[in-house]
Amino acid sequence: MMDPTPLYHRIYLVLREQILDRKFDPDKPMPSEIELARAYSVSRVTLRKTMERLEREGLILRQRGRGTFAVPPSSQTPVQADVSGLVENLLAMGLSTQVKVLEFEYTQTPPDAASDMGVAPGTIAQRAVRLRSLKDRPFSYAETWVREDIGRTYSAEDMATTPLLRLFEMAGVKIAGAHQKVMARSADYVVADLLGVEVGSALLCIKRVVRDENGAAVERIRALYRPDVYEFELNLTLGQGPDGTLWQPSQCMP
Amino acid sequence: MMDPTPLYHRIYLVLREQILDRKFDPDKPMPSEIELARAYSVSRVTLRKTMERLEREGLILRQRGRGTFAVPPSSQTPVQADVSGLVENLLAMGLSTQVKVLEFEYTQTPPDAASDMGVAPGTIAQRAVRLRSLKDRPFSYAETWVREDIGRTYSAEDMATTPLLRLFEMAGVKIAGAHQKVMARSADYVVADLLGVEVGSALLCIKRVVRDENGAAVERIRALYRPDVYEFELNLTLGQGPDGTLWQPSQCMP
Repeated sequence: MMDPTPLYHRIYLVLREQILDRKFDPDKPMPSEIELARAYSVSRVTLRKTMERLEREGLILRQRGRGTFAVPPSSQTPVQADVSGLVENLLAMGLSTQVKVLEFEYTQTPPDAASDMGVAPGTIAQRAVRLRSLKDRPFSYAETWVREDIGRTYSAEDMATTPLLRLFEMAGVKIAGAHQKVMARSADYVVADLLGVEVGSALLCIKRVVRDENGAAVERIRALYRPDVYEFELNLTLGQGPDGTLWQPSQCMP
Repeated sequence: MMDPTPLYHRIYLVLREQILDRKFDPDKPMPSEIELARAYSVSRVTLRKTMERLEREGLILRQRGRGTFAVPPSSQTPVQADVSGLVENLLAMGLSTQVKVLEFEYTQTPPDAASDMGVAPGTIAQRAVRLRSLKDRPFSYAETWVREDIGRTYSAEDMATTPLLRLFEMAGVKIAGAHQKVMARSADYVVADLLGVEVGSALLCIKRVVRDENGAAVERIRALYRPDVYEFELNLTLGQGPDGTLWQPSQCMP
């Protein structure tokens, strides 16, 4: 079967990001349709569809005889979080967010979460899905797995109003620390719909395992963030590593 | 014009990521083609094409009468960097990487880099593009802008063999610190080709401005990373913020 436009949406997403990133000088013409079609190895018809959509959305302006110009919208500054990327820290920063608990259940831990938590796959745990917004703009979609005995001490309503760390504290759990990975992932249909982005959009992803003082996993969270609404920032200073100069985060407390 | 399969490649990328992430239990059938087609609002023909490609690539297995099963490949563990995400730190960790300097020139700073560096757009600066590999696997594509007077003190060959921080030091520059943003971006045709990923794949993106002791910008880097080869990790501990408990990186030095 012929597939005339397999790349159409992906090229749209890439060019849209580049326009929002101001990668194209607004005073200079963008590469021509012929050049872009060649670069992405697609037909001019495909490329034209992409450009028509960008034009419809006001992201480019075609000027007869002059060329096509990028029109980056006046930027809406994203909320800036430190690079730990933790919504909990937003709370500590005094910023209030709105939370919707979309799912709340006790169910079998799937293999990936079980492996992260060091429990057998199928172990019953509390699964919750939360959507978080700041000034009515949804910016994070988070799925949490919490050890059953701790999860049973609070309700879905508690989860919507009280930070999870506070709920753990109220349950008598002493948190020792956490291990976190920062990744990039593409939006699937569920997340794209809830966060208001296109399927396939690049999202920041954080996976974190929180442990108690005995080293047992209390919580495993996987959260996806709209990078244009919620930005991770970090100040770095130079220190000494074993083999030379080493960057390190500078907002550590004494 | 009809566009029968606009979502084909995006759905392919999303499902591929989910299989590699082990989001599907390998012992349980995946959602059916009908269910997936409905979820992504595409025709069954479109969805079937996606599944055929995943099958061709050995990522799913169809078993007559039983259903379709995810076959996550035995994982190739990514290199783990701390969350500062700095290749410089890999060097300090004693890991050697291979660098190709793809471009090296003195040219006008474009608006986005100029704004980050606090110089007028059009200011001449050194622009270099480097591709970095670890054990022959390319994992980062980085574009750097360096202040002209500092850039003139070294060559493209120096850049391929010596860490940039060391070159700055040799030029007599005292680095005071850096400010860094962590983002997610989609691979364009240049980066996709060099890093060996599909156009539109989600990549980790780091943008950093390095300043000297007078607060002047020395370097602005924008680097894109393959998240399956190069992973950012961070240990966190709980501290006290102004309004309550606060997560903070725990690898800070005293």
